[in-house]
Amino acid sequence: MELSRFEKGLKKLSEVDGHVGEHVIESLNDIAPDLGKYIIEFAFGDIYCRENLNLQEREIITLSSLLTLGGCENQLEVHINGALNVGITPQKIIEVFIQCIPYTGFPRVLNAVGVAKKIFKLRNLGVEKTIV
Amino acid sequence: MELSRFEKGLKKLSEVDGHVGEHVIESLNDIAPDLGKYIIEFAFGDIYCRENLNLQEREIITLSSLLTLGGCENQLEVHINGALNVGITPQKIIEVFIQCIPYTGFPRVLNAVGVAKKIFKLRNLGVEKTIV
Amino acid sequence: MELSRFEKGLKKLSEVDGHVGEHVIESLNDIAPDLGKYIIEFAFGDIYCRENLNLQEREIITLSSLLTLGGCENQLEVHINGALNVGITPQKIIEVFIQCIPYTGFPRVLNAVGVAKKIFKLRNLGVEKTIV
Amino acid sequence: MELSRFEKGLKKLSEVDGHVGEHVIESLNDIAPDLGKYIIEFAFGDIYCRENLNLQEREIITLSSLLTLGGCENQLEVHINGALNVGITPQKIIEVFIQCIPYTGFPRVLNAVGVAKKIFKLRNLGVEKTIV
Amino acid sequence: MELSRFEKGLKKLSEVDGHVGEHVIESLNDIAPDLGKYIIEFAFGDIYCRENLNLQEREIITLSSLLTLGGCENQLEVHINGALNVGITPQKIIEVFIQCIPYTGFPRVLNAVGVAKKIFKLRNLGVEKTIV
Amino acid sequence: MELSRFEKGLKKLSEVDGHVGEHVIESLNDIAPDLGKYIIEFAFGDIYCRENLNLQEREIITLSSLLTLGGCENQLEVHINGALNVGITPQKIIEVFIQCIPYTGFPRVLNAVGVAKKIFKLRNLGVEKTIV
Repeated sequence: MELSRFEKGLKKLSEVDGHVGEHVIESLNDIAPDLGKYIIEFAFGDIYCRENLNLQEREIITLSSLLTLGGCENQLEVHINGALNVGITPQKIIEVFIQCIPYTGFPRVLNAVGVAKKIFKLRNLGVEKTIV
Repeated sequence: MELSRFEKGLKKLSEVDGHVGEHVIESLNDIAPDLGKYIIEFAFGDIYCRENLNLQEREIITLSSLLTLGGCENQLEVHINGALNVGITPQKIIEVFIQCIPYTGFPRVLNAVGVAKKIFKLRNLGVEKTIV
Repeated sequence: MELSRFEKGLKKLSEVDGHVGEHVIESLNDIAPDLGKYIIEFAFGDIYCRENLNLQEREIITLSSLLTLGGCENQLEVHINGALNVGITPQKIIEVFIQCIPYTGFPRVLNAVGVAKKIFKLRNLGVEKTIV
Repeated sequence: MELSRFEKGLKKLSEVDGHVGEHVIESLNDIAPDLGKYIIEFAFGDIYCRENLNLQEREIITLSSLLTLGGCENQLEVHINGALNVGITPQKIIEVFIQCIPYTGFPRVLNAVGVAKKIFKLRNLGVEKTIV
Repeated sequence: MELSRFEKGLKKLSEVDGHVGEHVIESLNDIAPDLGKYIIEFAFGDIYCRENLNLQEREIITLSSLLTLGGCENQLEVHINGALNVGITPQKIIEVFIQCIPYTGFPRVLNAVGVAKKIFKLRNLGVEKTIV
Repeated sequence: MELSRFEKGLKKLSEVDGHVGEHVIESLNDIAPDLGKYIIEFAFGDIYCRENLNLQEREIITLSSLLTLGGCENQLEVHINGALNVGITPQKIIEVFIQCIPYTGFPRVLNAVGVAKKIFKLRNLGVEKTIV
């Protein structure tokens, strides 16, 4: 039997974000449950389940977009965790942020690195230091 | 006798924002009093006092614009309170935010809903749950 | 029989945007047909078909969000036409833009008014002049 | 002998952008030659020459960032061409844009797809149609 | 006799922008005359007439803000002309744009330089070339 | 002997930002040392060391750009301190923010003034009150 968009999205959400994503959805239950429903159905059920890009590529694109938007520190927190969950290394996450410098300037990159620093510490992860 | 722009604006400000708006203006007194004066005279005296849109419509437009800008959580706090003060229901405020999803994406909407959640709780307001 | 999300969205799209919206979708057919499908299903089928806001309110919110984003002149063109189609007067559309000045500054408002000017001329519509 | 940052950058620029990128630099010669120099040295010599991400990944991140910024249609033109030059398929480029929808909304994605449409036509490239 | 805000603003507007600014205001007459009135009264009468910054400093700040906003090419055109009118050299205008690179990235700076190039050519102005 | 870009940048950084800037760089050491290196080499070594604008002008442009971007409160904190360090008065900093109102609207200006208020208090600085 085919899964509904909601079921497909929920499965993809926990694949990517684990409990962190579920927590965001739960926090919407008493105020905007439809918003949580749309995130699961549309963002995760429709968009994340598409072909042509794998999950690591999707997280890299999402990180680049969130960094560039600005003011999305909470969402960066969810998706830096998501990126780690699907196997992207801490060093590669930092590299994604550095690639954005020519297009966004330093401030947005500094903010994104600040969020990563907090998460890497919580998850006890290090970044290999390499001065180019 | 005709009211000055400042007097008209101050009256409109307390009509919309009550004490919250006045608190913003007061907090500017020792650092940028002219900024407070311009907000009262121009934003509230000139713009909010115009015809062709009622106060509820002006708050809906303001909420849409602040959500879309991003990084305006403090101003959203003032104007979610303002929207409630002029009679917009909590459910309708959430609906305004949801209407923005196709144009801003989910992150800015999640941030705005987060501010609303805090305010609704402080004012002891609930949102009727309706899963579409 | 219940309409699918796509059918509901297509009906809503032509209610709001008439042929202009359909033209946008058609222009996507040979390059990103799924994008057109998502706009119909999600933006119009899911979001525009919700309760709690009428069509005029939804267009007002959309205009406010597009003006604030900036760089969305093509989408403003579609939705200024949409706003007129659902019965919002030219004068009220201009008033929506003016209400955004305190939050976005003048440049984005000037750009939006420029798009409106072109459309009002094409549709042979005037705005009652009233200097406040 | 080690290449200078400028030489490394120039080599990388033509690897990515071919003549299109060089044309941007040349157009700066009589007005802001240092800007062209910094783009070559910093963006291409320092950032694009780093390890940890391959060229395809760097172009995907750049496309995501430019789409999200908005108002960067000229730069999207350069980097959609760049993405094709380093072997990313038209279909994958469209997929990158679609992955951004949940974070930026539809307008910025529509604008980016519009630029891609023009370039794919000029380069006589098609996108396999697949309605999901 | 004291000048009204409108009179003060109109005088300042022609001091800064000459006929270009007046043209913007005139183009609003049949669609949003109040918008033109607010630009003259508030932007030029209130803000530009303040003390503590001279006209050259105000134009430099305005150029920096418009470049950073993005999608304001029309307004940059007005204010690059304004900057030249109040005695800022072409070379210094370019330098203002270059100072923004670390905060906005290259794309917005490239767009601003593109507008300047068009204006400098129309006004037959050159920039001294100096490769640092 | 000529200084390297890094040495030039480090010298300029402490001239502008004193210990605050160095603290930002240090905080990057264990997670993204290259980001700190690029800020020193490119932002301070290349851009801040250029001719045609003095340090006070560069800080004014930077403040205008950061205010306009939004979501850069941390960077505003560094550069408000920097502006004070290179001799810009508190009153003039506030005036820079006020000049941005017509281009960014009130919310971003309110946020920047909020950061300034905190810093002026920490450094025990007052702003002369002058209602225009």
